Amino acid sequence: MIKVGIIGSTGYAGQELVRILLGHKEADIRWYGSRSYAGEAYADVFRNMFQLVPDLCKGENLEKLCEEVDVIFTATPQGLCSTLVSEEILSKVKIIDLSADFRIKDVDTYEKWYGIQHGSPQFIGEAVYGLCEVNREKIRKARLVANPGCYPTCSFLSIYPLARAGIIDMKSVIIDAKSGTSGAGRGAKTANLFCEVNESIKAYGVATHRHTPEIEEQLSYASGQETVINFTPHLVPMNRGILVTAYANLVRDVTEEEMRALYEEAYDGEQFVRLLPAGVCPETRWVEGSNYTDVNIKKDERTGRVLMLGAMDNLVKGAAGQAVQNMNLMFGLPENTGLMMPPVFP
Amino acid sequence: MIKVGIIGSTGYAGQELVRILLGHKEADIRWYGSRSYAGEAYADVFRNMFQLVPDLCKGENLEKLCEEVDVIFTATPQGLCSTLVSEEILSKVKIIDLSADFRIKDVDTYEKWYGIQHGSPQFIGEAVYGLCEVNREKIRKARLVANPGCYPTCSFLSIYPLARAGIIDMKSVIIDAKSGTSGAGRGAKTANLFCEVNESIKAYGVATHRHTPEIEEQLSYASGQETVINFTPHLVPMNRGILVTAYANLVRDVTEEEMRALYEEAYDGEQFVRLLPAGVCPETRWVEGSNYTDVNIKKDERTGRVLMLGAMDNLVKGAAGQAVQNMNLMFGLPENTGLMMPPVFP
Amino acid sequence: MIKVGIIGSTGYAGQELVRILLGHKEADIRWYGSRSYAGEAYADVFRNMFQLVPDLCKGENLEKLCEEVDVIFTATPQGLCSTLVSEEILSKVKIIDLSADFRIKDVDTYEKWYGIQHGSPQFIGEAVYGLCEVNREKIRKARLVANPGCYPTCSFLSIYPLARAGIIDMKSVIIDAKSGTSGAGRGAKTANLFCEVNESIKAYGVATHRHTPEIEEQLSYASGQETVINFTPHLVPMNRGILVTAYANLVRDVTEEEMRALYEEAYDGEQFVRLLPAGVCPETRWVEGSNYTDVNIKKDERTGRVLMLGAMDNLVKGAAGQAVQNMNLMFGLPENTGLMMPPVFP
Amino acid sequence: MIKVGIIGSTGYAGQELVRILLGHKEADIRWYGSRSYAGEAYADVFRNMFQLVPDLCKGENLEKLCEEVDVIFTATPQGLCSTLVSEEILSKVKIIDLSADFRIKDVDTYEKWYGIQHGSPQFIGEAVYGLCEVNREKIRKARLVANPGCYPTCSFLSIYPLARAGIIDMKSVIIDAKSGTSGAGRGAKTANLFCEVNESIKAYGVATHRHTPEIEEQLSYASGQETVINFTPHLVPMNRGILVTAYANLVRDVTEEEMRALYEEAYDGEQFVRLLPAGVCPETRWVEGSNYTDVNIKKDERTGRVLMLGAMDNLVKGAAGQAVQNMNLMFGLPENTGLMMPPVFP
Repeated sequence: MIKVGIIGSTGYAGQELVRILLGHKEADIRWYGSRSYAGEAYADVFRNMFQLVPDLCKGENLEKLCEEVDVIFTATPQGLCSTLVSEEILSKVKIIDLSADFRIKDVDTYEKWYGIQHGSPQFIGEAVYGLCEVNREKIRKARLVANPGCYPTCSFLSIYPLARAGIIDMKSVIIDAKSGTSGAGRGAKTANLFCEVNESIKAYGVATHRHTPEIEEQLSYASGQETVINFTPHLVPMNRGILVTAYANLVRDVTEEEMRALYEEAYDGEQFVRLLPAGVCPETRWVEGSNYTDVNIKKDERTGRVLMLGAMDNLVKGAAGQAVQNMNLMFGLPENTGLMMPPVFP
Repeated sequence: MIKVGIIGSTGYAGQELVRILLGHKEADIRWYGSRSYAGEAYADVFRNMFQLVPDLCKGENLEKLCEEVDVIFTATPQGLCSTLVSEEILSKVKIIDLSADFRIKDVDTYEKWYGIQHGSPQFIGEAVYGLCEVNREKIRKARLVANPGCYPTCSFLSIYPLARAGIIDMKSVIIDAKSGTSGAGRGAKTANLFCEVNESIKAYGVATHRHTPEIEEQLSYASGQETVINFTPHLVPMNRGILVTAYANLVRDVTEEEMRALYEEAYDGEQFVRLLPAGVCPETRWVEGSNYTDVNIKKDERTGRVLMLGAMDNLVKGAAGQAVQNMNLMFGLPENTGLMMPPVFP
Repeated sequence: MIKVGIIGSTGYAGQELVRILLGHKEADIRWYGSRSYAGEAYADVFRNMFQLVPDLCKGENLEKLCEEVDVIFTATPQGLCSTLVSEEILSKVKIIDLSADFRIKDVDTYEKWYGIQHGSPQFIGEAVYGLCEVNREKIRKARLVANPGCYPTCSFLSIYPLARAGIIDMKSVIIDAKSGTSGAGRGAKTANLFCEVNESIKAYGVATHRHTPEIEEQLSYASGQETVINFTPHLVPMNRGILVTAYANLVRDVTEEEMRALYEEAYDGEQFVRLLPAGVCPETRWVEGSNYTDVNIKKDERTGRVLMLGAMDNLVKGAAGQAVQNMNLMFGLPENTGLMMPPVFP
Repeated sequence: MIKVGIIGSTGYAGQELVRILLGHKEADIRWYGSRSYAGEAYADVFRNMFQLVPDLCKGENLEKLCEEVDVIFTATPQGLCSTLVSEEILSKVKIIDLSADFRIKDVDTYEKWYGIQHGSPQFIGEAVYGLCEVNREKIRKARLVANPGCYPTCSFLSIYPLARAGIIDMKSVIIDAKSGTSGAGRGAKTANLFCEVNESIKAYGVATHRHTPEIEEQLSYASGQETVINFTPHLVPMNRGILVTAYANLVRDVTEEEMRALYEEAYDGEQFVRLLPAGVCPETRWVEGSNYTDVNIKKDERTGRVLMLGAMDNLVKGAAGQAVQNMNLMFGLPENTGLMMPPVFP
């Protein structure tokens, strides 16, 4: 039984970790960390957990925590994990960081886009980018995993096979993404009130969203080419779900069938990436509550572009589910342990 | 391994049965019945099941079906199950009927409220009303279970302890209920289009809803008194969930604490009914996707009434989850097998 | 041209006042008051008003304000208006108070339910309860109008004809009400975030909601009997709209047709109360954005009760629209000036 | 007073025409046409119109209709208007066609994308594309106006100033659009049920949507260059609103300020197009219920692209509002008559 600690268990991603881990037969949550709710019953914060979680929320005593657990999930704001981690801690526990602190290899890029100084750049090199479908073997051996961002996961999985094959112009990539509102977090902000989000859609972070360099870096690795993209996220009046609509110019003549074959090859044996039948568009309703990412492509003969589409639950494969998938790998468990829940519809 | 057939697997309740049974380690769905989609891939109807369900939908050949399975769920419109069932069929398979055909013991009442002739009144006596918390022992031995309606389940569990204790005037009971739109089914009707339901709330079936006599009958059994109620359902712009707000006059002086004790006693050991802490109102968001019913009461000293509140997922405890709970009992399995999924939030 | 000042113009009700008054040919808003946004452009707070409202928000200098305008709307939290009002101010401007400060004639009742001391009890007697359909003549002459609460308006208009006729037992009245989320205000609270409200319904303020004594008082006046009710509000995942489902015991035998005649009589000539055809239930979608209240009744022969239903836009007839209706009366304008907008659907 | 007939008055766009025209002091609706509801009271179809519209729905007797009215709006499926129109009819009434029949000048393009034969190609040349901001003078003199599509209106207004200025590569234009569900019409289809649309987002008509050639044609006129675009619409769980996020490569170095100046110039004096302040993204909530289109741009220095964003109410400026704007021009009225309603929020 893996003993688990969660720092930031009272955010939406933290709570989703709890939901998933309660159904994970090899994991036992020992520490429900929460700066805001320390001392309160976890089930008073999230009443869905009434009679399921008897624990109180605890503070952030990392020294104590790392004595009591085997793995720590940090579902916290940017900058926190990098200031907490140390060689001593990493010698005792594994860390899966759901923040962006260790996702970007170039410190300058991180500091520029996030506007904060990195707290422990010495661990960036060691940290493994936890996209299981790509870095599976490295994750198995990692002490510190940087759990990918929600938009980057969905964007990357949608584009990866064509990027890797050198078929698309990596400077022509445009990613137009749409997210449910849980991605905005549980902080009490006027902009996220029901009446402000409901019955509306907007773009935000246009040309400045922090997930941009993360996507670019991963696509650069995959393609072997410098990648500069437009990434535009939008806020959609729904709780969960990310949809990615990506566009790229084809660099050589290739049929849709040939491109589909690249997806089949890239995701052969991958349980959590589903290439939909030709002509079927991904929809977020079909992945809600599950760890699946549904992808598909469409070649536009008129424009010479390919559209790459992906749908994902931002809280599962985009956060907590992928984090558990990483934990499974790090502890030698079957990768899908605790992650077999079918999507919930409607 | 229990071999399962589902008639009506392409409605919302049928699909929820599939979702739940896919995670049930002792059940194997052998027959995805659907009048509308026979011959089509199940995963083409519900794409959340892509790569999870490879089967095609089949028609309603009950003779063939009852040779191949151990239990049949009928998630079909009123009147179908009662015309299909026969002694021969019941000698071969168990039936859990999610329609109303066998819920009401009085045929005249059934025929009056439903406006159809009952197809097999000879089985009404045998059929067990499948509210596990009340009829557990009878369900264990049943061949034919009438799975309770969604509103009746939530209404009954909210009121039962006080009805049983004789504390409320059974002719004063008023049930004001609110349901998500999945309760209206998947038929293509203008009234259920997104733009018609969204941003609105309405009452429907006022003083005429068919769940009224079912609730009255069960409350009569529980209280030993004739029960005549007002039951008013409302349509709420959300996918899932039922909230019951029930009112009754107290027939004698009793404190809220004494009433809470009656709930604690009635639901002692019941995993799927959660009496919330005093003062905490049930909310549908806290039970979504799970088999829980959350209940609570509030005494109004000013009016001498008690309010009884309950929240439930209409597709789980109100339909598919309770049906699986019944199946577990009928096959001697632990009652919660396959039903331990925590509520999904947000 | 009536010169208008609004205190609290940056709440939802305040903004709705602005929307309505922009289309009112006899009104001119001179003062956009806002404690939170003083000094900011109004159109930066509500971008729907971009290029429509060039003004900056101003603070709460009432001495200055009452020199510049003819009427002040106070769309502010409870307790503010009663501390601001004075004989001097009332000698200069008319006041329409959208808060609860002057709605309840009994100071003790006000102070008990609202938990604050009343700031100017000497004006309670003078203040006119601004339900135009009932107090029209008094409103015409008033200096100070207490604009009714949203729930009380919809509840009262639904019940009034039967209460007045002495046909229902005023101690049997139960009001089960449902409101859109704009009724919760624009304050940044976790409980009102999109993900917390969406896909859920809950009761709140059970047996304690502050609109209870206001409804009781008005129904007492109408019926001439002491009225003690159960009032239970619910939060619905939609922006606007209130639905009232009220229940009462009939004190004598009366047909539904006779009761409908009472509604027709009570609302004869009333433009903003629409008695729907027999059998048609009010729905909030059909009144959204308008000043209408749709009402209807249903007699339940089985229980001897009558159901009284009403639907209204909480921000219009439940707040800003009714306030403008009051203003029209106070200034001798046709009562429907600026209020003729049809409901917006979908 | 302009006498108005509406064919297709019981669709969402038709009903919005009714809502707007009820507040238009120079228009009088004489004919509520509806194939589906002929003979029924209009207010029974749309109960928001109860007591506002006493008329019954009528059939499609165009010969009779054109004797009784001055202008006919056809809010009907593709192909209908072109089969109804004739020289005789046009000699008696003006026609504003909300379908696509006369929007595209090239018959082959129309027939290819719409898959139907054009019913009266002889009128295509005469028909004026009713985008008032561009074709105002022609509209004034027109007998037959092709009211632009919803997506084309929002797309064109967002891109027009840069296209006209020759600043963007017209073969690089990518339009990623998002629409509320009223755009899908009021037909009873499973895919548009509440539970299917709610809590989900999807792309549809990828690389094949019929608005593509309409947008291309208009942008070609504006730019003087052949324009081939990617246009991808998405379905959003909200009633109203379209958001356009468009991308294009800049063909020469130009600052964001210079581009903003082009918008200011292009829309100088245009009441219904609002260029938002720099850095402010359009959101559909700020235009709901109104005839405004909000636009803005953002230059991405990193990629050398410009993003052009626009928000609009698909039923108003995208359909009925623009149609009334056209009517006003055709009848010599002030262009904004009946269209001054501020956006409704929330």
